[in-house]
Amino acid sequence: MAITISVFERSPDQGRGLARDMRVRWALEEVGQPYETRLVSFDAMKQPAHRARHPFGQIPTYEDGDLALFESGAIVLHIAERHAGLMPSDPGARARAIAWMFAAIDTIEPPVIEMSLARILERDKPWFDARQPMLEERVRGRLGELSERLGDAEWLDGGFSAGDLMMVTVLRRAAAMGVLAAYPALAAYVARGEARPAYRRAFADQRAVFEASAPADG
Amino acid sequence: MAITISVFERSPDQGRGLARDMRVRWALEEVGQPYETRLVSFDAMKQPAHRARHPFGQIPTYEDGDLALFESGAIVLHIAERHAGLMPSDPGARARAIAWMFAAIDTIEPPVIEMSLARILERDKPWFDARQPMLEERVRGRLGELSERLGDAEWLDGGFSAGDLMMVTVLRRAAAMGVLAAYPALAAYVARGEARPAYRRAFADQRAVFEASAPADG
Repeated sequence: MAITISVFERSPDQGRGLARDMRVRWALEEVGQPYETRLVSFDAMKQPAHRARHPFGQIPTYEDGDLALFESGAIVLHIAERHAGLMPSDPGARARAIAWMFAAIDTIEPPVIEMSLARILERDKPWFDARQPMLEERVRGRLGELSERLGDAEWLDGGFSAGDLMMVTVLRRAAAMGVLAAYPALAAYVARGEARPAYRRAFADQRAVFEASAPADG
Repeated sequence: MAITISVFERSPDQGRGLARDMRVRWALEEVGQPYETRLVSFDAMKQPAHRARHPFGQIPTYEDGDLALFESGAIVLHIAERHAGLMPSDPGARARAIAWMFAAIDTIEPPVIEMSLARILERDKPWFDARQPMLEERVRGRLGELSERLGDAEWLDGGFSAGDLMMVTVLRRAAAMGVLAAYPALAAYVARGEARPAYRRAFADQRAVFEASAPADG
């Protein structure tokens, strides 16, 4: 039975690959597993049928036979544990790769999302401009620390792993807000991720979904 | 060689067990593994010696022989994978327990932390009061969805797991801000977690560290 993942019918990122299904698509491409997609509209995401798959009414979800999962980090880890290509075989290196997965979503992503949310939800508020430097400073603090740790290494801990996959997708959200350019080592790290054939296939596939959903006259 | 974890020398939560070392202490108590603590001051956390253990200068860290880890989620998962007591043996149930770990820190915790950070960092700002309802609404939205999924079950997915451990610690931060009382099923769920003997031992141990650090007349 085929793996099925839920993705946006029409992604709010306009096909830029910033939605969280990108992580799962990329992981499945890295390990060479085919999958099918279920396109979900914003309305359908909040209905009981999708809530049964995802308690918080979001994407992505993952189904493989009897197993149904939500949370992109958990799905990527599940894929990485079942198939070669995303996790080192040494137990210590494997634990560190998982630490980088958690660091991506627990330490780097929250200030990035908060800055992004403010731009979406508070742009018309009287305090919007005044809060921007504080929000940007939180992001920059984390990016500076990450850049220092990465140094001139190719990936975060030895070879490419699920930790890098998660981190690159989080950093792409920072790049979309224009804050990554000040960290050339991180920008180059993201570019290395984006150059991987598995990334490019995943990116093209999510873009095709958005383009198929877009009105012909744009 | 003993497991060593880094913890606050003097926790900013005043010994209420809200710092992230509590998760690791609780996990180690659940699986019956002894450990030692390294007390770290706010100043020491930002120095190179601690940065080598934790790239972002935070607590907790975990060391066991040659292995050094950071990120509380990754540490709890590592403990849960090596010792019985925190993870179901069925592979599907195990993957779902991990999904709940990620849900705790990726979906529930960010709006809770954001509300908490605003209270710490923006209380004197002219926009503080105006933003509070929006921040609280974000937290309540997630708590409502979580409560609906939990229903009248004892734990999130079958028996107590590392997913519950992470979720209870996140919900305790929401409780500390007064937003959990409106969700009696979640409040009872947290109380069940706090009643576990392993939780109580972990709580007492972190409290003792704070009390030992406090001025005698404090």
